[in-house]
Amino acid sequence: MDFGQKTEFLSNLKSDLYQKDFLLTWEKSNDDLLAILEIADILKDMRQANISPRVYDSGLAVSVFRDNSTRTRFSFASAANLLGLAVQDMDEQKSQIAHGETVRETANMISFLSDFIGIRDDIFLGEGNKYMREVSFALDEGFNAGVLPVRPGIVNLQCDQDHPTQSLSDLLHLKHEFGSLEALKGKKIVMSWAYSPSYGKPMSVPQGIIALMTRFGMQVELAYPEGYSLIPEVVETARAFAIQSGGSLNINHSMDDAMKDADIVYPKSWAPYHIMVQRTELLKNKDTQGLAELEKQALENNARFSNWEYTDKQEKLTKHGNALYMHCLPADISGISCAKGEVEAGVFEKFRLKTYLEAGFKPYIIAAMMFANKFKDPADVLKNMITGGSKRVGF
Amino acid sequence: MDFGQKTEFLSNLKSDLYQKDFLLTWEKSNDDLLAILEIADILKDMRQANISPRVYDSGLAVSVFRDNSTRTRFSFASAANLLGLAVQDMDEQKSQIAHGETVRETANMISFLSDFIGIRDDIFLGEGNKYMREVSFALDEGFNAGVLPVRPGIVNLQCDQDHPTQSLSDLLHLKHEFGSLEALKGKKIVMSWAYSPSYGKPMSVPQGIIALMTRFGMQVELAYPEGYSLIPEVVETARAFAIQSGGSLNINHSMDDAMKDADIVYPKSWAPYHIMVQRTELLKNKDTQGLAELEKQALENNARFSNWEYTDKQEKLTKHGNALYMHCLPADISGISCAKGEVEAGVFEKFRLKTYLEAGFKPYIIAAMMFANKFKDPADVLKNMITGGSKRVGF
Amino acid sequence: MDFGQKTEFLSNLKSDLYQKDFLLTWEKSNDDLLAILEIADILKDMRQANISPRVYDSGLAVSVFRDNSTRTRFSFASAANLLGLAVQDMDEQKSQIAHGETVRETANMISFLSDFIGIRDDIFLGEGNKYMREVSFALDEGFNAGVLPVRPGIVNLQCDQDHPTQSLSDLLHLKHEFGSLEALKGKKIVMSWAYSPSYGKPMSVPQGIIALMTRFGMQVELAYPEGYSLIPEVVETARAFAIQSGGSLNINHSMDDAMKDADIVYPKSWAPYHIMVQRTELLKNKDTQGLAELEKQALENNARFSNWEYTDKQEKLTKHGNALYMHCLPADISGISCAKGEVEAGVFEKFRLKTYLEAGFKPYIIAAMMFANKFKDPADVLKNMITGGSKRVGF
Repeated sequence: MDFGQKTEFLSNLKSDLYQKDFLLTWEKSNDDLLAILEIADILKDMRQANISPRVYDSGLAVSVFRDNSTRTRFSFASAANLLGLAVQDMDEQKSQIAHGETVRETANMISFLSDFIGIRDDIFLGEGNKYMREVSFALDEGFNAGVLPVRPGIVNLQCDQDHPTQSLSDLLHLKHEFGSLEALKGKKIVMSWAYSPSYGKPMSVPQGIIALMTRFGMQVELAYPEGYSLIPEVVETARAFAIQSGGSLNINHSMDDAMKDADIVYPKSWAPYHIMVQRTELLKNKDTQGLAELEKQALENNARFSNWEYTDKQEKLTKHGNALYMHCLPADISGISCAKGEVEAGVFEKFRLKTYLEAGFKPYIIAAMMFANKFKDPADVLKNMITGGSKRVGF
Repeated sequence: MDFGQKTEFLSNLKSDLYQKDFLLTWEKSNDDLLAILEIADILKDMRQANISPRVYDSGLAVSVFRDNSTRTRFSFASAANLLGLAVQDMDEQKSQIAHGETVRETANMISFLSDFIGIRDDIFLGEGNKYMREVSFALDEGFNAGVLPVRPGIVNLQCDQDHPTQSLSDLLHLKHEFGSLEALKGKKIVMSWAYSPSYGKPMSVPQGIIALMTRFGMQVELAYPEGYSLIPEVVETARAFAIQSGGSLNINHSMDDAMKDADIVYPKSWAPYHIMVQRTELLKNKDTQGLAELEKQALENNARFSNWEYTDKQEKLTKHGNALYMHCLPADISGISCAKGEVEAGVFEKFRLKTYLEAGFKPYIIAAMMFANKFKDPADVLKNMITGGSKRVGF
Repeated sequence: MDFGQKTEFLSNLKSDLYQKDFLLTWEKSNDDLLAILEIADILKDMRQANISPRVYDSGLAVSVFRDNSTRTRFSFASAANLLGLAVQDMDEQKSQIAHGETVRETANMISFLSDFIGIRDDIFLGEGNKYMREVSFALDEGFNAGVLPVRPGIVNLQCDQDHPTQSLSDLLHLKHEFGSLEALKGKKIVMSWAYSPSYGKPMSVPQGIIALMTRFGMQVELAYPEGYSLIPEVVETARAFAIQSGGSLNINHSMDDAMKDADIVYPKSWAPYHIMVQRTELLKNKDTQGLAELEKQALENNARFSNWEYTDKQEKLTKHGNALYMHCLPADISGISCAKGEVEAGVFEKFRLKTYLEAGFKPYIIAAMMFANKFKDPADVLKNMITGGSKRVGF
């Protein structure tokens, strides 16, 4: 592990992450993203080399999960712990945080000795990211008024628009699989809708993927049945990135056609934009009957596309019949987690351990976001720890 | 931040907090209280100066919350973490801790490697503080029998009688707002009942306030509608303190009259003593119908005093029309958290950030209680850390 | 506390615990068990002497509790904290971990930065230990594939077969009560069924006791009413150990007769093997009615043996009428936790604090299992910490 080369590369980046929240990858510069990837890699290498990257002697990392989570919860806990922070869960079941006033208050009440707040809020379209910005605003106010000794950084652990810790883990995985970010230029990645027996899965993963991969010169193929489109603004953002980077973004309504010559495939279910718009409206009005009808209708519609399953047949269409399969996990695996789902069991099994490797980058991506938020010159702090740091384990 | 002056002041106090539980402020001497305030201030300054006050390399701080809590839970977690302890929640849902025998056993079972137990138990009149003393007795027994290597200290995080971490945070806030504790002498503070659409709020905050502020020479005005009295013994205790300190305690049944020339106001709802007595009896007998009737009757009675709202009109009656508004939060704010409540939105907004500052002292008050319990000479330990301590964050 | 003698003894043991899971005591050699006991004793002495045995600067200890627990949960948290690990609970309520595929995946997803996984799974006969081995296999696979940077060790916190952290705590307690392990040779210990108004208690404690105590030359008397037998294979294992160690295993169907001249008694309820077999079958088939009938029948059968209570009368039959009473807690104490139960209140009270001492070894046994798993030469690491280690508390 060449720490010197990596910290040197990092110190030459013009990133602007210091004391900034991490809410959407498309608000960040390319150098910002490169810095996150590089710090994540260095932290991973340090741990592997038994060098502790602990920079906090005390401090809290607060987690606010407004939706179930195992993977991201453990990733956040691991990242916080790696840097020396204790995790404190904010259980909202008894708070009235939905209310504007209370968001403002609660944000401060949980932050007196906190350094980071990780938020997952991906259920309501138009709500998750907005909520994060309300918290952000409240923290600014509290910090400026002297209520908070430090301004805790916010890490988006998935919202209605983006899932940056996932997409950056995915990108770091690709970097390792293909050797470098440069090697990704011109590679074809297919972000494809896939059939699932459930409905209402957020759009944040496919949106995060197309808006990120288009920035690195990749040929991004977004495939879905007619009617399963994503938030239009995000697609436009991705399109603009593709133009800038010399990559491309193409929308395709045939899974088979999309898979042709793909280097990488990411078959995953999501609920279409227009359904999410209706669902959010019905949820706001607490229209239980309307919601039941929408679900029925959506599932019926999904069923029409149950052949959007990634199987051996599709795989054969990809480059050398062996495209790298990716998934944010858990996948709906046909015959294992459900009768028929996103991916055929045999194909999944072939790439199963690779998907674990993919997931394994997330703790380091989150830790990197924290690290970059906290230190003006992260390369310098890392260098010092590598030279004079203590062991993670042992005496 | 003049650490020298503060630690010097601290070392001259004759406090007796070493290895003592903190259950009620009125069991503590004035020097005890001054020591807590001073240690809290020093710990806050240290953290601000990036000096870590971590004195534990390992150890648990157990939290037992028998009632919902966000603020106090985070304050306890923050305090424990600041000193180096990990928080372990004791979830009673599956224990039978109501039983005398089991309290004794559980107290020991959760304490083998624990240094502190924070307890919130404020629902039943006559129960909360009693329960803490049962735990205290059990810990003494276990420690004396060699079961426990150290005797964990107990911190009262709110009981039926007192809310010492709140009242001391409030006092520290006043010290900072008025410049010193001496400056509080002769100041008029109004602890006033205020209307709320809910019922059954504990009396521990108003009791804690009157029994504490009377000790510092303040003119304490306790205002409530006829029938909304507090536990008589606590009022007597406060009265005796007022005489000793050269302050006063006056009971007033007109909110308007009470507010006249006030320097500080603390309008907050509580359930009257006689209602709490009945409620506790009904709860013990599991008399669901009786409880429903009592609630109905109590709410109807409350409604007769819905004009006990702290508004612009009341504020104008205070000194220079600008008394410092205090609240333990969350407040029932008219038009925001409820249709009509304890305080007018405009008045609350004016002091909103000040109430956040007020709340922000609580983690340090709790940490100070732990610190003073653990070290015979806290000033000395603090001095050593200030001179030779490590950074809280950084490498 | 003679650290030198203890670490010397430890370093001469031929144990094979390095990077091994701890699932069943009967899979471990005598030297393995001696090493666990010795490390536990040393860690306990170190803490008492305010020497911190913290060997981790960061890392997670994951707890998976598939059954309620207070004691073991706190013991696991204490052990992890003592060594420097943060506890992260794996709440399975929302995972589908029952499924083979998902166990494999989840095991890896929670382990990216984890050092230990503690598992309690004692409800279904034939399931708990099997589940642990599935997790174990998944971790091996993940580690070998480079998914996991270290292979987390598994600690069995109670399964359907054994409760090793309990039985080893019990043994360490006996070592302290009788002065040495050698002093236990020839001592009579009665592991006796006792009446309880509940049904379905696991067999892991009695099985753990007979399979462990037979290895140290003790005269083990297993007493239960006809029909309340344990898993046959475990009884055979214990019998073989007794022969090897020069001890004995005798089965007795009279409580009174069993108690004669006993040095140690362990009266505790359990559900008989044949009932557990039926129950597991009914649970698998979700046969609610069958389960209700089985419970009714089992409770009726239990009631026939309500005189299997350890009372003053039984105690008089033991050696000098004063055998050491043991229990894993909580006990069903007649007149206190239930009308009629495992033990008479007076007898329990006499030994109550001793049962607390017994329980107090568990955190150190768990920490010792972690320590021995992590270091090839634990004696050496301990020596270094004793000589040059830092204080647990203080500055």
